[in-house]
Amino acid sequence: MGDHVALREVGLRDGLQLVAAVLPVEKKLAWYVAETAAGVRDFEVTSFVPPAAVPQFVDADEVGRRALAVPGPVCSALVVNLRGAERAFDAGFTRLNYVVSASEAHSRANARRTTDEAIAEYARLRAARDARPNRDDITLSVGIATAFGCTLQGNVAPARVAEVAAAIAAVGVEEIMLADTVGYGDPAAVAALVPMVAAAVGGVPLAAHFHDTRGLGLANLCAALEAGIRRFDASLGGLGGCPFAPGATGNIAMEDTVFLLDRLGCPTGIDLAALLELRAIVESWLPDERFGGALARAGLPRTHPVRSDAPAAAPDPTRDRTDPIGGGRS
Amino acid sequence: MGDHVALREVGLRDGLQLVAAVLPVEKKLAWYVAETAAGVRDFEVTSFVPPAAVPQFVDADEVGRRALAVPGPVCSALVVNLRGAERAFDAGFTRLNYVVSASEAHSRANARRTTDEAIAEYARLRAARDARPNRDDITLSVGIATAFGCTLQGNVAPARVAEVAAAIAAVGVEEIMLADTVGYGDPAAVAALVPMVAAAVGGVPLAAHFHDTRGLGLANLCAALEAGIRRFDASLGGLGGCPFAPGATGNIAMEDTVFLLDRLGCPTGIDLAALLELRAIVESWLPDERFGGALARAGLPRTHPVRSDAPAAAPDPTRDRTDPIGGGRS
Repeated sequence: MGDHVALREVGLRDGLQLVAAVLPVEKKLAWYVAETAAGVRDFEVTSFVPPAAVPQFVDADEVGRRALAVPGPVCSALVVNLRGAERAFDAGFTRLNYVVSASEAHSRANARRTTDEAIAEYARLRAARDARPNRDDITLSVGIATAFGCTLQGNVAPARVAEVAAAIAAVGVEEIMLADTVGYGDPAAVAALVPMVAAAVGGVPLAAHFHDTRGLGLANLCAALEAGIRRFDASLGGLGGCPFAPGATGNIAMEDTVFLLDRLGCPTGIDLAALLELRAIVESWLPDERFGGALARAGLPRTHPVRSDAPAAAPDPTRDRTDPIGGGRS
Repeated sequence: MGDHVALREVGLRDGLQLVAAVLPVEKKLAWYVAETAAGVRDFEVTSFVPPAAVPQFVDADEVGRRALAVPGPVCSALVVNLRGAERAFDAGFTRLNYVVSASEAHSRANARRTTDEAIAEYARLRAARDARPNRDDITLSVGIATAFGCTLQGNVAPARVAEVAAAIAAVGVEEIMLADTVGYGDPAAVAALVPMVAAAVGGVPLAAHFHDTRGLGLANLCAALEAGIRRFDASLGGLGGCPFAPGATGNIAMEDTVFLLDRLGCPTGIDLAALLELRAIVESWLPDERFGGALARAGLPRTHPVRSDAPAAAPDPTRDRTDPIGGGRS
């Protein structure tokens, strides 16, 4: 395919959001720095939610300031209201991510407001951004949650998703991200929704956020690629889960996603071997969490090239082994 | 999409091949009968390998005879040589599966013969079939193992895979199955190989056997669907694994595959709820095995229709739950 695909690491936010154990600031930053070294260039590093709501993000200001001091990567934060946006601006963030749920039921349960109220709040965020002296350096991305269905409401009409996207675009936005919050999406739904939303938002760049809750995450990503999307979220080790499906797999795994894109000939600039080494470290920091992704268990194929400037890949566990079974295998 | 897609359950063969604990005949048959009731119509129930090689299949003759006595489903067996084929014919099988490795290294390690020797052995199988009085009722399927790469040899040239397929077609065959034995395949490789092989074998129907070793199993299936393939192998709970990658995920999970095909509008006639119930039972029989697949952990989406004559689906664990986090979620 050849097109460059941009991957954003959301493990430090979406991944840690459900993790009970608060990861110390030093480890969050070590993760961030190491994954930057592995070639990842875009991160959502924290969430400016009310500290009481998510103890994991009590350190949002410190994590933000220190991550922003690392030269190179794009560093963004999730904000859920104007108050959080002001905190993020004050911490120095120039890239903010905000969320609107296309499902009224999810919007009320998750953000305690209607979808239209969430869009109105976004308009206030936009105005706050426009009031900042560095407004021209500030970009806002809005994710449309439950874009492929909702565990509370059930179906979410694609026409409604396109309507919400159009309303956000009318306010002004640098990116709209279609999010399969609960893993209800499938390749056919992706192929149908993306062009509808693209037509509704004019030239606003689209991105996608897939969870692998029901095993279709990477198939959905392939469908989104075919539909023209070139920006995706993923999390190291598939950390994340779904708050509505205990024990379910979470975000698509960064390492499996990079492997797929490498195979499709879409350069990401990410060093898979280094990513796998980092995953093992982060996994050791969170022993009580269930990590996802298949590549870490299987190892890189011996046929898979690693970046020339990368450390050697972990040896393929298969090399020089023969089938222990004397029978045919298909 | 609308096309019917045929799925073959290979858990009783490929799935159990690496399981140390020998599953009793009664349980193998209970699995077979229950999955038949769930709507699965095609099975590979055992393997006629030398008993010393795989204790799991010492019961091949009994499993075969009893499975063949169950009216309805298509019941096939894997054979690895002429001797095994004669045993299968004697047991009453009229559908045999044979394997040729496109990788010379894999062929020598796995079957102790060159690829050409394996094709020559297939010609002897074909002749044995033609010598049977019921020859016209007997269909042979040949899987091309390591069609997407080999853990021992590395790359396997698509041209070589097409050459092997042409040689098999020249002998005469009812189906050729492209097998990603070690999980090296990807959607681009599938899209490139399928038309090459189709052109090399004339009108011989093609099928595909994907492992999810590196997380791309269902994305590869989507690519094969687009390339025109309508017959696939899968195993309940993703049982199977890869003998060359200890701990790695195995075959694509039957339940996740049915979920995907349901979503794509490809009828399979399979009852997902019943399949999930059976998976839980089989999992309880093999407590030491690592099962794969995501759907069993997440549950069916509340929006997913189940067959009208099916028992009610397990309740969506997400229903009536709200996001425990007061922050936005994308």
